[in-house]
Amino acid sequence: MTESQATGTAAARAEIEFWFEFASTYSYPAALRIGAAASDAGVAVRWKAFLLGPIFKELGWNDSPFNLQPAKGRYMWRDLERICSGLGLAWRRPTQFPRSGLNAARVAALFPDEEWLPDFVARVYRANFAEDRDIADVDTVRACLGEVGVDADATLHRALGDAGKSALRRQTEEAVARGIFGAPSFVAGDELFWGNDRLEAALAWAGQQH
Amino acid sequence: MTESQATGTAAARAEIEFWFEFASTYSYPAALRIGAAASDAGVAVRWKAFLLGPIFKELGWNDSPFNLQPAKGRYMWRDLERICSGLGLAWRRPTQFPRSGLNAARVAALFPDEEWLPDFVARVYRANFAEDRDIADVDTVRACLGEVGVDADATLHRALGDAGKSALRRQTEEAVARGIFGAPSFVAGDELFWGNDRLEAALAWAGQQH
Repeated sequence: MTESQATGTAAARAEIEFWFEFASTYSYPAALRIGAAASDAGVAVRWKAFLLGPIFKELGWNDSPFNLQPAKGRYMWRDLERICSGLGLAWRRPTQFPRSGLNAARVAALFPDEEWLPDFVARVYRANFAEDRDIADVDTVRACLGEVGVDADATLHRALGDAGKSALRRQTEEAVARGIFGAPSFVAGDELFWGNDRLEAALAWAGQQH
Repeated sequence: MTESQATGTAAARAEIEFWFEFASTYSYPAALRIGAAASDAGVAVRWKAFLLGPIFKELGWNDSPFNLQPAKGRYMWRDLERICSGLGLAWRRPTQFPRSGLNAARVAALFPDEEWLPDFVARVYRANFAEDRDIADVDTVRACLGEVGVDADATLHRALGDAGKSALRRQTEEAVARGIFGAPSFVAGDELFWGNDRLEAALAWAGQQH
């Protein structure tokens, strides 16, 4: 989808922003199910990658809250397993957590409207949370781009250069300005919804406002 | 419901534990809707009051995370307003937050199986989150007991004495042992579910296991 097509779509129907972070566990089921759920609801999706690291750092955290709060972490791993099982999504607890989504997020921030983007996002999440691959490694991101039929080297050249860096920086600043504090988050109009289990509420809100 | 009736019910049908904290905002809609939702699902509810304060203190927090993390707090207040509106529940943002639920929790921990307990719990939550009354004040708790037709002075005498203190202490320790880190939480068999929006998943789990 080109920029102008995206704008046309936005004018024509209800829309939500999907704010995701590649390191975020609950963003995985959200990313894998949002396409079909939004389509069923007649709502368009704007894909908005961002980084939680700078937001957590502002709070004095240098790690995921799921590591800083062990009971919450134990719960999350079991909950993810149940959620993925319920959705029929492949799931394997990664041997490292969190893994930096920086490189993948620069790609997603620079190319949000490309037709291949949702598929690329899904592949990166699967690599991290179903295949235990290291998504922090540029080679993993390159492989995911190749798997969706993109010229991986040309795409990475732009995404990992200044254009991709500043696109992701801007988008993370936009997340903060939107009041976003966790992932996944959904924005419908001026309303924020946080968490995979609030996707339906966000879609319903977007539909009502339209 | 007497102790023996509760045991009989547990043997006869599926059951979930409802872990709530009177200071917890998201416990309010959960407490007000769990009765009907569980009844529809054919699941019995065990009412388990506990305190989050000691759990937060272990993490080095001396306040609610909704105060410690302003963006999360701003989101929560708006989200609660939306949720209550959707459920048709009265809602007014309290002028103080959090308010200690200690006195009310001692009552609930000591008398979990009384027939009036769910109604008492609902009244305390309404006092805090719909009527902006100070539930930390014993007089508010006394009024809530009176409103459900209980001998308030006799009940408070036992609840605020050693029996109530140790019942609540034991129950909070049990919460920690169950892996509980927030409220509301639901336990179905060995499975923990956290958050008002996971009540349905907990009820479904309890039903399947039975």
